[in-house]
Amino acid sequence: MSEIIEVKAGIEAENEKFAAEVRKLLRQHHVRLINLMASPGAGKTSLLEQTIDGLKGAYRVAVLEADVDADVDAKRIEARGAKAVQIHTGGSCHMDASMTLQALRTLDLDEYDLIFLENVGNLVCPAEFDTGADLKVMILSIPEGDDKPLKYPLMFQVTDCILVNKIDTDEIFDFDLQKLQKNVAALNDHAQIIPISAFTGSGVENWLYYLRECIRSTAAGF
Amino acid sequence: MSEIIEVKAGIEAENEKFAAEVRKLLRQHHVRLINLMASPGAGKTSLLEQTIDGLKGAYRVAVLEADVDADVDAKRIEARGAKAVQIHTGGSCHMDASMTLQALRTLDLDEYDLIFLENVGNLVCPAEFDTGADLKVMILSIPEGDDKPLKYPLMFQVTDCILVNKIDTDEIFDFDLQKLQKNVAALNDHAQIIPISAFTGSGVENWLYYLRECIRSTAAGF
Repeated sequence: MSEIIEVKAGIEAENEKFAAEVRKLLRQHHVRLINLMASPGAGKTSLLEQTIDGLKGAYRVAVLEADVDADVDAKRIEARGAKAVQIHTGGSCHMDASMTLQALRTLDLDEYDLIFLENVGNLVCPAEFDTGADLKVMILSIPEGDDKPLKYPLMFQVTDCILVNKIDTDEIFDFDLQKLQKNVAALNDHAQIIPISAFTGSGVENWLYYLRECIRSTAAGF
Repeated sequence: MSEIIEVKAGIEAENEKFAAEVRKLLRQHHVRLINLMASPGAGKTSLLEQTIDGLKGAYRVAVLEADVDADVDAKRIEARGAKAVQIHTGGSCHMDASMTLQALRTLDLDEYDLIFLENVGNLVCPAEFDTGADLKVMILSIPEGDDKPLKYPLMFQVTDCILVNKIDTDEIFDFDLQKLQKNVAALNDHAQIIPISAFTGSGVENWLYYLRECIRSTAAGF
């Protein structure tokens, strides 16, 4: 049974102080933290299921599952054989660094190499808060449309990697990958765009390759 | 060319005061306001395009388009022949009553019967704020999944109507309408659930029927 912890938002002006504490804690225990952000239903948990499978034997993985309520996602992660901590955000629409710190402190960090923070499903608020993570990854799913960078610019600006999920439904939806690339390029000159299907597994190997490279390469700032 | 107005959030504790002002203004001018909420990419603007077409000749419609940035949605609405006001929320993840009031005051309200507020794409924050609207409608799209009421309970609690959009993609996604109904019933005993496809137009007539009934019937509290 996954643990459920209730966290409280920190004072916004002090977020950077808490983010620095998160980074210090991660370095002390030689563990990496990845902040995974997306709209509701874009496929965050499905991606994590595939990622846990793909990294099995190479890295010890835990997942912090942030939700306003419920524990369905944590159960899915534990069914995959990874440690999950279900975080209830007390109504908050995002995770901040203080909340992340509270969640990390419930884990024996020496037991893990890689921790994913599955943020609250939301393209607005999570983009505004540094959680202290080493890498910011977002998912945009095909049914959401290629115009989303125009409407949620901060999220597309701050992310290091954009996973374009549900590409198995590409023929049904009017989604133009080149248009997305153009919309992203206007905001962000370094983000990797990787098309995947967390449902069929297509492209997931490219994501895992990117992730392993980030972990290996200090030049990537990871 | 659609107007762009920049609005500022009101003081949260005073939201009810502003909501009362919105209601008073709407009653003075015999106009109805509908707060339309959903995740990014669920199909809010596509629904409004269909709705404007369906109500043509019966009601004079205007749309308040709330976005963190961009004016793509307002342009789509104006191309359909309805008045659009593009609201920039100054980074805010939702519309509050004060912001709604600022937007309504840019319109000559005697020119309209029905005004839609297309809220910021977000299942968390918009649910927390009474905008003074007469009716709250949300869209959940099939690709998002039937478990969303478990994870975003407040939105499903406060809404009067749930439009289940993109039903033309029902066979591709693992979405169980009965499971959704069960998840909703645990939170909300009055919300209408109406399956539609804003893309094919399927079910839109049921939505328009519901809307016309709400407008006609004072018993529905509208």
